[in-house]
Amino acid sequence: MTVPPRGFPDAEFEARTRRAQEMMAEADIAAVLVCTEPEVRYFTGFHTPFWQSPTRPWFVVVPAAGKPVAVIPSIGGPSMSATWIDDVRTWSSPQPADDGVSLLTATVREVAGDGRIGLPMGPETHVRMPLNDLDRLRAELGGFVDATDIIVRLRMVKSEAEIAKHAHICGLVSNAFDELPNLLSTGMTERAAFQAFRAEILRQGADDVPYLVGATGPGGIDDIIRQPSDRLIADGDLLIFDTGSTFDGYFSDFDRNFAFGHADEGARDAYRAVWEATEAGLEMLRPGVTTTELFTAMNDVLKANGSLGNDVGRMGHGLGMQVTEWPSNTDSDDTVIEENMVLTLEPGLVWAPGKAMVHEENLVVRAEGPEMLSRRAAPELPIIGG
Amino acid sequence: MTVPPRGFPDAEFEARTRRAQEMMAEADIAAVLVCTEPEVRYFTGFHTPFWQSPTRPWFVVVPAAGKPVAVIPSIGGPSMSATWIDDVRTWSSPQPADDGVSLLTATVREVAGDGRIGLPMGPETHVRMPLNDLDRLRAELGGFVDATDIIVRLRMVKSEAEIAKHAHICGLVSNAFDELPNLLSTGMTERAAFQAFRAEILRQGADDVPYLVGATGPGGIDDIIRQPSDRLIADGDLLIFDTGSTFDGYFSDFDRNFAFGHADEGARDAYRAVWEATEAGLEMLRPGVTTTELFTAMNDVLKANGSLGNDVGRMGHGLGMQVTEWPSNTDSDDTVIEENMVLTLEPGLVWAPGKAMVHEENLVVRAEGPEMLSRRAAPELPIIGG
Repeated sequence: MTVPPRGFPDAEFEARTRRAQEMMAEADIAAVLVCTEPEVRYFTGFHTPFWQSPTRPWFVVVPAAGKPVAVIPSIGGPSMSATWIDDVRTWSSPQPADDGVSLLTATVREVAGDGRIGLPMGPETHVRMPLNDLDRLRAELGGFVDATDIIVRLRMVKSEAEIAKHAHICGLVSNAFDELPNLLSTGMTERAAFQAFRAEILRQGADDVPYLVGATGPGGIDDIIRQPSDRLIADGDLLIFDTGSTFDGYFSDFDRNFAFGHADEGARDAYRAVWEATEAGLEMLRPGVTTTELFTAMNDVLKANGSLGNDVGRMGHGLGMQVTEWPSNTDSDDTVIEENMVLTLEPGLVWAPGKAMVHEENLVVRAEGPEMLSRRAAPELPIIGG
Repeated sequence: MTVPPRGFPDAEFEARTRRAQEMMAEADIAAVLVCTEPEVRYFTGFHTPFWQSPTRPWFVVVPAAGKPVAVIPSIGGPSMSATWIDDVRTWSSPQPADDGVSLLTATVREVAGDGRIGLPMGPETHVRMPLNDLDRLRAELGGFVDATDIIVRLRMVKSEAEIAKHAHICGLVSNAFDELPNLLSTGMTERAAFQAFRAEILRQGADDVPYLVGATGPGGIDDIIRQPSDRLIADGDLLIFDTGSTFDGYFSDFDRNFAFGHADEGARDAYRAVWEATEAGLEMLRPGVTTTELFTAMNDVLKANGSLGNDVGRMGHGLGMQVTEWPSNTDSDDTVIEENMVLTLEPGLVWAPGKAMVHEENLVVRAEGPEMLSRRAAPELPIIGG
């Protein structure tokens, strides 16, 4: 397997910035302020897990023309200066009395002049800085306009370089799932099963496995976001793994289901229902279709198969630098699907009281339809040690 | 090694809630709203990596008396209902038009009555929900008062059950560092070195390695938050690893430095300086000392050894459910250190232009002084393959 190159050429960041600036001009926005890990990485290439420390805020200001400006703690200075960004302004943080607020205020004023200042304020965004500091910033700058739409439209459509990273990690995780029957057996604890699977994904070449949840249960499972317990896997159990693994900061996101030894008809039918619902989604998926049409196509199959509903709230979503991104496949999302969106289809149903089945594939939308990124799961519930 | 029990008995959550309620009564606060992963986990025990998905907001309301109330997406219902929390209110999310805002508003009004509503708004906090929704919530509820101090005072001081989890993960990572000379050699790429070290930490029994950064460089390194490159490790290189690994959701945080083959006097002296600075911190650390006194003790040693300053902005910090927590060892933080705080000492210096050395130990503060959680690093720069 060819490993895609790490990082991106400067042309990628130039194109992202140019597209942002076109949308900013249309919306009469003179500067956009971003402050979360994926937003900052999107415009700069700055890529570090250091964001897990909640101590310091980080900011990037996208101007109407020219390169973005970074306003960051000095600990990030060397790494940010190694990106395509030229204008890196730092302060010594932590400094609670003024943790970047005055430097950011001055920078935004300089960049935006009298123009309007955009900030993502809508669904799936948040402002990563203390609310007291945000209030002060708003007072100083006279408020923000919502720039969510600009960020969403940019990030939903992937470049070929981004798609190559998704394809790579999806291939690695598909390989790891193929090994699962050799790794797991009854008598193991859930925790040991998770450890074995995580180690296998890393062995295949993933950079990390930031997201791994799942559960086992006799004849079925009711909760898909659990962490492992010391429960021993037994004959007749169902297992779900939901994993988000990364290559160079881009995610895969798989739900896969397995039975140990044997499975009853209800479980096998439920598996077949989510598999067929995925087929229905794949069949109709192409640019111009909406996420709501996609939801309906999958949901119709589940309803015809006796779904008692589900708690997930959607049937798939965008995939990117985060394990879930816009859009959501729901009954009201209505996003028009475009070429080069990377999406998951994730139909799920409750097939008996307290028994859920959720299935997920990853794909990129091409002009002619979906191109699979995950290797399509088997059409029948796989049995381990059967 | 005895593995500490997973999770906590209900009594732990009762004690946390009771302490919060005592501070709320003192501050005339009728309810506290929290919405980030560690805050929600602290009061409920709800523990899942699902928070990596930015799609859905999650809320917990701490009342003046009685158990906290969870207001969460239905996908989390089964997991939250398995905690000690009785009152779990759910809505089907994502639902951008009203993603929990009206349910949360009604819940907070019910819990707080006409009383004041607290929200963490200060240093190291942020509000994890879209700003548009937060603005709506503020308008509906008539605003918040800052509850940062309550959360900080609670979380800074650890229980024995929390300390046992820290001690366990710090022991596992100490073991993994002991193996490092057997795992690394010149001619490896940085990336392969990181992979080998991550795999070893997991093999030792860590649940995960969410944080792993570092760098190599000829005779020294200048940037401590980088991810690995394809650079080949060469004779004469210095290596720094900074890792935050977890057991049951509690972190260790180590900086460790190594040389390959040989090291020049400057590097060896810089290592000795950060090691001695740590000794100075350990010697004076006891309840009643302030973080600023601790900073000064360490900084004096570094200055006496020719420090050109550093970019980190502090010399250690609290450790807990996040890889860094309050307080910060800085020249102005001035937090009074209390018994059972879990802290890192992390002196760092720039010892030549573009050459940094940072060292970090983990400890718990006992009545009589520090008890080491990490195994103390060697006093002289370790040489691999020397």
